[in-house]
Amino acid sequence: MSSLKPTNIDELSVATIRCLAADVVAKANSGHPGMPMGMAPISQVLFSKLFRTSGAGKTPWINRDRFVLSNGHGCALQYIIAHLLGYELSMEDLKEFRQLDSKTPGHPEAGHDTPMVECTTGPLGQGISNAVGLAIAQANAAATFNKEGLELFNNFTYCFLGDGCLMEGISSEACSLAGHLKLGNLICVYDDNHISIDGDTACSFTEDVEQRYLAYDWHVLHVNDGDRDLAGMAKALEEAKKVTDKPTIIRLKTTIGYGSKIQGGAGTHGAPLKADDIEQLKEKFGFDPSKKFHIPQEVYDFWHQIQERGAGYQKEWDQMFEQYKSKYPAEHAELSRRMAGKLPNGWEKALPTYSPSDSAVATRKLSETLLSKVSAAVPELLGGSADLTGSNLTRWSDATDFQHPSSQLGNYSGRYIRYGVREHAMGAIMNGLHAYGLHIPTSGTFLNFVSYAVGAVRLSALSNFRAIWVATHDSIGLGEDGPTHQPIETAMALRAIPNLNFMRPADGNEVSAMYKVAIESAKTPSVIALSRQNLPQLEGSTIEKAEKGGYVLKEVENADVTLVATGSEVAIARDAAAELEKKGIKARLVSMPCFRVFDIQPMEYRRSVLPSGQPIISLEAYTTLGWHKYSHVQHGINRFGASAPAPQVYEKLQIAPKPFAEKAEKVIAYYKKEKIPLVSPIELTAAFE
Amino acid sequence: MSSLKPTNIDELSVATIRCLAADVVAKANSGHPGMPMGMAPISQVLFSKLFRTSGAGKTPWINRDRFVLSNGHGCALQYIIAHLLGYELSMEDLKEFRQLDSKTPGHPEAGHDTPMVECTTGPLGQGISNAVGLAIAQANAAATFNKEGLELFNNFTYCFLGDGCLMEGISSEACSLAGHLKLGNLICVYDDNHISIDGDTACSFTEDVEQRYLAYDWHVLHVNDGDRDLAGMAKALEEAKKVTDKPTIIRLKTTIGYGSKIQGGAGTHGAPLKADDIEQLKEKFGFDPSKKFHIPQEVYDFWHQIQERGAGYQKEWDQMFEQYKSKYPAEHAELSRRMAGKLPNGWEKALPTYSPSDSAVATRKLSETLLSKVSAAVPELLGGSADLTGSNLTRWSDATDFQHPSSQLGNYSGRYIRYGVREHAMGAIMNGLHAYGLHIPTSGTFLNFVSYAVGAVRLSALSNFRAIWVATHDSIGLGEDGPTHQPIETAMALRAIPNLNFMRPADGNEVSAMYKVAIESAKTPSVIALSRQNLPQLEGSTIEKAEKGGYVLKEVENADVTLVATGSEVAIARDAAAELEKKGIKARLVSMPCFRVFDIQPMEYRRSVLPSGQPIISLEAYTTLGWHKYSHVQHGINRFGASAPAPQVYEKLQIAPKPFAEKAEKVIAYYKKEKIPLVSPIELTAAFE
Ligand SMILES: [Ca+2]
Ligand SMILES: [Ca+2]
Repeated sequence: MSSLKPTNIDELSVATIRCLAADVVAKANSGHPGMPMGMAPISQVLFSKLFRTSGAGKTPWINRDRFVLSNGHGCALQYIIAHLLGYELSMEDLKEFRQLDSKTPGHPEAGHDTPMVECTTGPLGQGISNAVGLAIAQANAAATFNKEGLELFNNFTYCFLGDGCLMEGISSEACSLAGHLKLGNLICVYDDNHISIDGDTACSFTEDVEQRYLAYDWHVLHVNDGDRDLAGMAKALEEAKKVTDKPTIIRLKTTIGYGSKIQGGAGTHGAPLKADDIEQLKEKFGFDPSKKFHIPQEVYDFWHQIQERGAGYQKEWDQMFEQYKSKYPAEHAELSRRMAGKLPNGWEKALPTYSPSDSAVATRKLSETLLSKVSAAVPELLGGSADLTGSNLTRWSDATDFQHPSSQLGNYSGRYIRYGVREHAMGAIMNGLHAYGLHIPTSGTFLNFVSYAVGAVRLSALSNFRAIWVATHDSIGLGEDGPTHQPIETAMALRAIPNLNFMRPADGNEVSAMYKVAIESAKTPSVIALSRQNLPQLEGSTIEKAEKGGYVLKEVENADVTLVATGSEVAIARDAAAELEKKGIKARLVSMPCFRVFDIQPMEYRRSVLPSGQPIISLEAYTTLGWHKYSHVQHGINRFGASAPAPQVYEKLQIAPKPFAEKAEKVIAYYKKEKIPLVSPIELTAAFE
Repeated sequence: MSSLKPTNIDELSVATIRCLAADVVAKANSGHPGMPMGMAPISQVLFSKLFRTSGAGKTPWINRDRFVLSNGHGCALQYIIAHLLGYELSMEDLKEFRQLDSKTPGHPEAGHDTPMVECTTGPLGQGISNAVGLAIAQANAAATFNKEGLELFNNFTYCFLGDGCLMEGISSEACSLAGHLKLGNLICVYDDNHISIDGDTACSFTEDVEQRYLAYDWHVLHVNDGDRDLAGMAKALEEAKKVTDKPTIIRLKTTIGYGSKIQGGAGTHGAPLKADDIEQLKEKFGFDPSKKFHIPQEVYDFWHQIQERGAGYQKEWDQMFEQYKSKYPAEHAELSRRMAGKLPNGWEKALPTYSPSDSAVATRKLSETLLSKVSAAVPELLGGSADLTGSNLTRWSDATDFQHPSSQLGNYSGRYIRYGVREHAMGAIMNGLHAYGLHIPTSGTFLNFVSYAVGAVRLSALSNFRAIWVATHDSIGLGEDGPTHQPIETAMALRAIPNLNFMRPADGNEVSAMYKVAIESAKTPSVIALSRQNLPQLEGSTIEKAEKGGYVLKEVENADVTLVATGSEVAIARDAAAELEKKGIKARLVSMPCFRVFDIQPMEYRRSVLPSGQPIISLEAYTTLGWHKYSHVQHGINRFGASAPAPQVYEKLQIAPKPFAEKAEKVIAYYKKEKIPLVSPIELTAAFE
C-alpha cells in the first residue's frame, strides 16, 4: 500500500478539475475537454503528492521536477494545475483559453509567458521525446555537478502521453534510446483511453504497448482504474521512482471525458461539451450547476499547502547551494554562470581563423577542428550524431560518450550522445536538453535528413530554443550516394521557417563565424550546412564580416555584375569572376552564409552589399526558388541530383565557373539591350519591409 | 526440414555474389560492400528458391513477388541479383556502379531504368514502409479481382532491412500498422549484424527487436547462422509463407563483410575493401584472385533455370488471365485498364462545378463532395487519413475501410485506410501502393503535419510516383489550435521540391481543377492544401482556367496593379480590389493555385497572366519567401501564427482586405515616385529559363 493515502479532498479536487476543464473549453468554444477530464485523477495524485514544484510565482527552480504534456491538446488540464499550484496563471487567464495573446494558448507554447510549460507540445510525439531530453540533461547535470552529500540535481521528469504520441514514430525513436540509456529519472503515464480522433483505437492501433516498452527495456506498470483508483496511481508512481536504472511507463486505463453523458467516446475529444452535459456533470459531482469556473475554497487551501511545500524544497536547495559555494567555489561559479545563461568570458577566442594560404579543407572537417577547441571553452555544449559520427565529424577528439556507466562505453557526465539513426527524436531531444536550462545541444546528420526532423526543428524555432544542427554532406558535392541523399529543396525549406538560422559557410573563417552566431543566438536555433568535399580558404573572408550573414568578399569599382553565392559555390563564383575578368568584365563577389542574419542587418549595410547599378546573379547548388529576393537572375538546380563522382555531377548540372560566367555575360548583355534600369531587389525590401 | 535443399551450387553462387559485390564497390571506389557480402546467403535462398520473378527482360508481371531493399545502401547486392536473374542489367552496368547516368546508382532509384527496383530506398526506414504499401495493394487487388479458381493476385512482398531501418521511427509506424492489418503477404528479413555506422549497435540500439515485433502482432522467427545455414533460411522463409494472417520478420544473424579480413566490423560498411583484402577473399572462396567481375558458368547456368521458371509463372498467369477474360469480361476490362495505367473514360465528368451564387464552403468540405463523386468514377483511388478523418473529410460516404475481415470493421477490398497518427509511414506506404501498379493513393492530414512526412514526399517526387495528399487546415485559418498547427513555411518548402505539385485551390472550381491535375499527373505527386474555414465561390473561376496553375480571375483595362493570391487569400485579394476600386484604383486579380503547373505553361500565357506595366503584389498567409519570383512586392506572414479565433488571427497578422489594399496603394505610389519601369518578374524568367 502506498504511503500517499488519498483523502476526500483529493476526490473533491479531482471533481473540481474535471468541471473546470469542461468550463474552460466551453467558454473558449473550442478545445479538448476529454483528456483533461480523464486525466484529472492522475494529475491530482502526481502534482499534489509526488511532484516537487518550484515555489509559486518564483523564477523556476533549477532542480524542480519537470512535467511535459505530450498529448498537448489537453493543455486545459496543465493550465488548471498551474493555477492551483499558485503560478502566475490566474482564473482570468483560464477564461482567456485559446484567445489572442493570452497565456493559455490552444497548445502549450514554451519560451513565452506560460508557467509550467517546459516544451512546446501538441504536434504528437514531440513531448515524450522532449521529456527524454530533459531526463538526459538532468542525468548529465547530476553527474557533472553533484558532490557527496550535495545532491544539487535529483529531479524527475514526468510526462503524460496518449495513443497519438505512441503511434508517431518519433516516440519509438526517443523511447528506444531512453531505454538504452537507462534513464531512471523519467516517468511516463500513458493515457490508455482506447480513443483517438477516428474513434476506437481498434481501427488502427492494436499493438501491445506494454510489450513494446518491455522490448525497449523500460520498467512497465499499469493501473486498471485510472478514473477512481487514486491509491493505485500513487503506488505506481512511487514504484516508478524506486527503479533508478530504467525509465518507467505506467499504462493507465481511463475514460475519456469521464463524467460526461458521452464519456468514453471520441465525441468528448476535440469539441466542447454541450451546456446541458456540463450541467449534469456538475450535479453528478455534487456541484451547483449554475456556477462556472468554480473552485471550492477547501480545494484552494489544499493546493496552497502544496505551494508552500514547493517553496520549502526550493529554500532547502538554496541553502545546499550556499554550502556548495563554500566547498566547491569553482563548480559553483561555473554552474551559476550556466544557470544565468551566460557564455564563458572570451570563449570566442577559441574560434579558429584561417588565411588564404591555408590548405583547402571540407567545411565538415573545419567544423571538427572548431568543435575540438570550442567544446573545451564552452562546457555546456552537448554534442551527438544520428549514427553518422565518422561522416559528420561531430565528436571532438577527447569526448566521452553520454552512456549509462554499466555499458562501459561512457558515463552520464559524457558530452557526446550516440543518438542512433533517429533524426526526428534527436531534434526533439535537443529541445528537451535546451529546456532543462544548462546545455547548448548540438547534433549531426546529413543535411538531407534534417528533413526527417523538421517537425522538431520548427518547434525549436517557435519555442525560441537554441538547438544547433551540424548538417554535413550538404549538396550534390556528396557525389555517389546520389539524389536520395542530395538536398535540393532543404536549404530553402529551412530558410522559410521563422526564427531559424540556416547557415552555409564557405570556408574556415565562415565556419567560425557561423558557429559564433549559432552559439550566441540564445533564442534561435541554427542549422549549419557543411560540405563533404574540400573547399579553399577564401581571400577576403573574416569572422567579423561573415557574422553579418552576407558580405562583400571582393569589391570592384564600376562593376558590371554582382555574383552572390553560398558555401561550396562561393569558390565557384570566385572562379567565374576570374573568367569574366579575362574578358574585361568586372564582377563583385558576395558571400551570403545566412539569409536571416543578413536580413536583420541595418538597411544601409544590406544596400552596400547588394547595391543597385549592376545585375545581381545568384549561384547555389539548390533550387533557385527564394533567391529572387536578393538577385535578378538565379543559377541553381531545379531538379533532383544524380549519383556519380561529385565533379561529374557538378559538371552535368552546370554548377561550375564556366557555365556560370557564361550566364553572367548573357545577363549583362540582356540588361544592356533591354535598357532595364538595375534596381537591387533590396530596394523593394527597403521600401516595404 | 525444408523441402528446399541447398546444394553445392548454392554455396558457389553465394561465394560468387560476395566476391562480385566486393569488385563492384571497389571499381566504383565508393559504396557499401559489407551488407551485400553479409546478405548474399539469404539472397541466394530467397531469389533462387522462393521468389516468383517475372520472366527475364519482360514487362514486369503484375503478380510477380515484390522485393524491397530497405537497407538500400547495399544495392550492389540487388543489382547483382537482377543481373543473375537475367533482367536487363548487364555486367557492364555492374561495372558502371555509381557512375553518371548508369542503371546502377548509389541507392536504388525507382521510376527510372533499373529492373527489379520497385521503390526508391536508401533513406533509412522508407523501404520497409514501402513494402507495407505493396502488401496492402496486393491484398486489396486480391480481394477486388480474385475469383474462385482464378487467383490472379497472390504474390508476396519481401523486404530486407537493417538496424538503421529499425531505429527510424517510420518503420515503427509502418510495422505497427502492418501488424494491425494482419498482412500475411509481407515477409521481412532483418539483417542483425550488430553493426551500424557508429560501430557496434551496443552504443545506441539495444532494444529487443523480436519482442518489439511480437508487440506489433507479427510472426517472429530467427536464424542464428545467416552466414552459412542456407537450410535454416529456407525453412524460415517457408514457415513465413505459411502464416497468412500476420506479417513475418525473420531476425537473421549475419556477419557484415563476411569473408573480408575485417569482417564483422563497421569498416566494411561504407567503403570499398582494400585490394589485398579482396584477393584473400577470393582465395578463401576458391576463386582466382586475379579475376575480377567473375561469374562461373555453372552459376550463370543455375540462375538461367530460375529465369525460365519465372517465365513459366508468367505464362501460366497469362493463361489464367485469358480464362478470367472469358468468365469475367467486365472485371477483365477494368483490370486491364488499371494495369495499362489509363484513367476511366470520361471520369472527369464526375468533377463538380460551381457558380458564384453557390454558398461559401470550406475547400476541405468541397474536397469531400468531390471525393464522394470521383471515388465512384475512379475505382483505383485508395483513400485514407492519419487519424483525422472527421477533420480532413477524406472518407467518402459509402466507403468501406481497408481492414482484415476478422476486425469486423471492414475488409481487404475496402478503399479507405485508417493510417493512425502515422504521417511519415503514410507517405511511404502511398509510395508502395503506387508502386504495385494498380492504385492511386490519396491520404489526409493537416498541412502542417505533411512536414512529418517530407522524407517520404520527396521520394514520391524523385520516383515519379503519383501520391496525393489531402492537406487540410492549411493556414492560420484553423484558428485556436495555434502556431503549433499553423503552417507558415510548409507551402514554400513543398514548392521547393522538384516534381511536386503543391496546390492551394481558392473555391469549388479550383478544387475540381486541382484534383483533375493531381489525378492526371501520372508521374508527379501532389499536395492539395485545403481550408478549414468557408470560402466563397469566386466570379471568374473555372476548371479549365484553374488547371493552368495560375490565371486571371478578373481582367481590367489599364490596370494600376495586379494582385495575385492563392487559396483562402484570393477572396481577400478580391475584396481588396473592391476597396481599391472605390478609390478609383484599378486592380487586376490573379489566382495562382499551383506554381509548378503554372511554370510549365507556355511563356506567352504566363506573360498574359503576370504582364509588365503595373506592379504585381502577392498575398498569401505564409512566408513571403519564394513569391519574389512572381511579384514585385509581397504581403504575407514572416513569423509564426497565433492561437485565437481565426478572424482575430487574420486581423492581428494583417491578412485582410484593408491592410492589403493600403499596401497596394503604397506600392503604386512608390513606383510612380521612383519612376522604376514596371517589368514583370516573368520577363527575367523568360530570358534565362
Ligand atoms: Ca487516446
Ligand atoms: Ca547493421
